[in-house]
Amino acid sequence: MPNFTAADHAFMARAIQLAARGKYTTQPNPAVGCVLVQGEDIVGEGWHEQAGKAHAEVNALAAAGDRARNARAYVTLEPCAHHGKTPPCATALIDAGVAEVIVAMEDPHAKVDGRGIEALASAGVQVRSGLLQDTVAGSLAGFVSRMTRGRPFVRLKIAASLDGGTAMKNGESQWITGPEARADVQRLRAMSGAIMTGIGTVLADDPSLTVREASIDMQGRQPLRVVLDSGLRMPLSAEMLALPGQTLIYCNDVSKRQPLEEAGAAIATVGGDGESVALNAVLDDLGTREINDLLVEAGPALAGALIAQDLVDELVIYQAPHIMGSETMRMLRTPAWTALADRRDLQISDLRRVGDDMRITARLRGRS
Amino acid sequence: MPNFTAADHAFMARAIQLAARGKYTTQPNPAVGCVLVQGEDIVGEGWHEQAGKAHAEVNALAAAGDRARNARAYVTLEPCAHHGKTPPCATALIDAGVAEVIVAMEDPHAKVDGRGIEALASAGVQVRSGLLQDTVAGSLAGFVSRMTRGRPFVRLKIAASLDGGTAMKNGESQWITGPEARADVQRLRAMSGAIMTGIGTVLADDPSLTVREASIDMQGRQPLRVVLDSGLRMPLSAEMLALPGQTLIYCNDVSKRQPLEEAGAAIATVGGDGESVALNAVLDDLGTREINDLLVEAGPALAGALIAQDLVDELVIYQAPHIMGSETMRMLRTPAWTALADRRDLQISDLRRVGDDMRITARLRGRS
Repeated sequence: MPNFTAADHAFMARAIQLAARGKYTTQPNPAVGCVLVQGEDIVGEGWHEQAGKAHAEVNALAAAGDRARNARAYVTLEPCAHHGKTPPCATALIDAGVAEVIVAMEDPHAKVDGRGIEALASAGVQVRSGLLQDTVAGSLAGFVSRMTRGRPFVRLKIAASLDGGTAMKNGESQWITGPEARADVQRLRAMSGAIMTGIGTVLADDPSLTVREASIDMQGRQPLRVVLDSGLRMPLSAEMLALPGQTLIYCNDVSKRQPLEEAGAAIATVGGDGESVALNAVLDDLGTREINDLLVEAGPALAGALIAQDLVDELVIYQAPHIMGSETMRMLRTPAWTALADRRDLQISDLRRVGDDMRITARLRGRS
Repeated sequence: MPNFTAADHAFMARAIQLAARGKYTTQPNPAVGCVLVQGEDIVGEGWHEQAGKAHAEVNALAAAGDRARNARAYVTLEPCAHHGKTPPCATALIDAGVAEVIVAMEDPHAKVDGRGIEALASAGVQVRSGLLQDTVAGSLAGFVSRMTRGRPFVRLKIAASLDGGTAMKNGESQWITGPEARADVQRLRAMSGAIMTGIGTVLADDPSLTVREASIDMQGRQPLRVVLDSGLRMPLSAEMLALPGQTLIYCNDVSKRQPLEEAGAAIATVGGDGESVALNAVLDDLGTREINDLLVEAGPALAGALIAQDLVDELVIYQAPHIMGSETMRMLRTPAWTALADRRDLQISDLRRVGDDMRITARLRGRS
């Protein structure tokens, strides 16, 4: 790892801040930030705003103008070296006469990986890489997942009482968490390329799965709504079919597809045993559809199946300050886990209060 | 509320620190601290260490000597005005010529309440009261509970997985939380006058319910061990009967009491319906036995019954970073809670990580 100064850290931290401005809008592209520095002075800042629009480096170069010559460029992600929707950023940095490029994370994208740095280096631009890499890798977990595994980063959101209940056994339920937690879920949705639920939840709750929070600027985007519905029981009257954005239904039985397609839904089959859709195949298919971050908001059956098949990367649990008692449904249904050895270990990455509720963010670590 | 300066706050905060030194040893007395100040200089400090030994004010006066004259005394609890095991502290402060007494919390003790302040005031000592009162009331919750309600403050400790499981349904279980959380439980035990469990837990786990943590100086004290055992099924071989400290068994059927008494246990009856001991009456009885803080470490049946009867004041939940799934026992068994309206609201007072686990401390607020 190269040496980095305190000033290097500060400029990269600024680049990371700039990158975050695009987190709701760049998908399927990663959110990237760039800062151009002469000596200790920032001479240009840029970030990527939306796929098809200019990359962070190009925006920063435009802001710096002539002052880009001999500047240092702090970029959160390795500059691209290929012609995509826009010309390669490595070339733009070279042409502008930038003297040094400091990179947080090298690009996991197969078309770029290492080539941006290679292009810069062979043009005589100094390159240092790895500064605040973990921070950037964390915020780009979805992009990294799709590039390296061909499938989205799967985030499972659960709302439960402090004693682990989600609804009464008789089905009685209502909002468990408070308004601040629900607003927080809107941000989780906004940063996701798709939101997935099961047909059971659609039939019981008729959710919208849209981003409605006025303070979040999505620039017109809505996450893809994904419903797992092996028997294609999706009602034509489902709320989400009438809302802005796209609904994609995975099923095993396509015989009833036509009216749903006429209602605007897309129908897909990826295999499954009739009773349920093959979860692995769904994730692979969502990868080909360029979904980086998948948020799952589902009932205990689908949530439990994803956990039991080790397909969840991160859990976000909102715990409400209530005790609901034992006559309640559990957050995860895992009928096959009959021994302690079946349990899964978590690594808590964040713990905080959100309004009156608590929010626990944890990565899955597999069996203990 | 009188005016308090920043310096007043700092001196009272110091007195509260001193009081905390007695938290494991003063029971059934409250832990009290005292600071004597001339101008801005501390001239004497004291705290109460053990019932029967000198009170905080007397220790601080002894430390200050002649410099107590015209000093200000910061005391966390209203000085006593009655002859108990030691002479009244109000008299000692007056005799030493203290000019002003600043009190955090007035004493809820029926024999004292208001009389200490009254005695000081009629001797010409200035008194201001209420500084950092909530802080002191929080740490003396057990003492306040016994003085005002005649029963201990009931703290229910639970260890569970993040999804609310405590053991497999087939009974398979093991330590759920890590060593730091278990050390933390030792501190909860040490600050308690008694630790209560049910006979089910004794038969299943044979717990010791003692304080074993070497870093905690109990000065030989062990919390009273309380077992609810309506049918007096307590085995003579139970571990706790052989350990230092006292075991008290509440039962409804005293016919088998003699061998247990010979084994060193105390047996008590307070009424009940044969199947279970009357929980309310147990708490009242523990109040007459001068228990301020009762820690409950029980299985889901007793824990659930206490919660359902609204007898728990505070919940301390250790959540381990595991998912145990749905085929597990719940932390609380509440068979009668079949509607959402039965749920109880909590107020989270503390949320933190303890080793790899999380600890949630919450007050019960009754039905929502």
